[in-house]
Amino acid sequence: MLGRTYGNQNCSAARALEAVGERWSLLIIRDAMFGGVTRYTDFQRNLGIAPNILAARLDGFVEAGLMRTRQYSDQHREYLLTDKGWDLQPAIIALTEWGDRWAAPAGPPAVYRHRDCGGHVQLRTHCSTCGQTPPPAQVAAHPGPGRDPAS
Amino acid sequence: MLGRTYGNQNCSAARALEAVGERWSLLIIRDAMFGGVTRYTDFQRNLGIAPNILAARLDGFVEAGLMRTRQYSDQHREYLLTDKGWDLQPAIIALTEWGDRWAAPAGPPAVYRHRDCGGHVQLRTHCSTCGQTPPPAQVAAHPGPGRDPAS
Repeated sequence: MLGRTYGNQNCSAARALEAVGERWSLLIIRDAMFGGVTRYTDFQRNLGIAPNILAARLDGFVEAGLMRTRQYSDQHREYLLTDKGWDLQPAIIALTEWGDRWAAPAGPPAVYRHRDCGGHVQLRTHCSTCGQTPPPAQVAAHPGPGRDPAS
Repeated sequence: MLGRTYGNQNCSAARALEAVGERWSLLIIRDAMFGGVTRYTDFQRNLGIAPNILAARLDGFVEAGLMRTRQYSDQHREYLLTDKGWDLQPAIIALTEWGDRWAAPAGPPAVYRHRDCGGHVQLRTHCSTCGQTPPPAQVAAHPGPGRDPAS
């Protein structure tokens, strides 16, 4: 699924958006991740999207390794997140936190809690050297080892 | 810009995607945030996208309050991120980290560093109660105060 829309961008964010940047993709993964949704019909009911789009997204996730399928009857199967799919959780939380701050006049529709202790879970930046939580203006992008890949 | 594609979803992640979920949106914001890009022609050169799409995205960002404009000559203006736009940084970092882990065989094209000390900046979950960094399976979504808004 990589390299179609943003093929000229050597950028990991662009690579992620190739996988999950299409309409509805991250909301389907949200439902799997936080709603425990596994079945096509349940995704369909929750999201109300066109069946052909939902089917294309789920098939694409399987192809990209974000989900795997498991038969639960002769005719039906479940879609389960893989580790690669679960690893999108910070992106979903980050978008949620932005929406909570800027587009939720009635307050957050949902809050994230730590299963162990019930505490509120939020994302923070963390500096590996000084241990601080840098604000946006204090974070800069520098070239990494994959800046100019040999291939 | 809210409420068009995901109008039936009372979800802050969906609200965020209404603002920045269209093709190229987050990469334009990435260039403004980490590349210091402010001018239409520079966005155009960096991204290579169709002029009408770029213009529509920039105008949409201004309308949504993610960017503001500043004239720098009689005929040209700059597009500058607002606080609301800067606040998308965690979403961009989260997508980048996912791409680094799953779609960067040559290594990360870019790394995020703390301007103050040069340390590597990463995102972490943080539990407000126990202070731990819960892994994905330990984070659950619960109804929040905006779950059933009066309006």
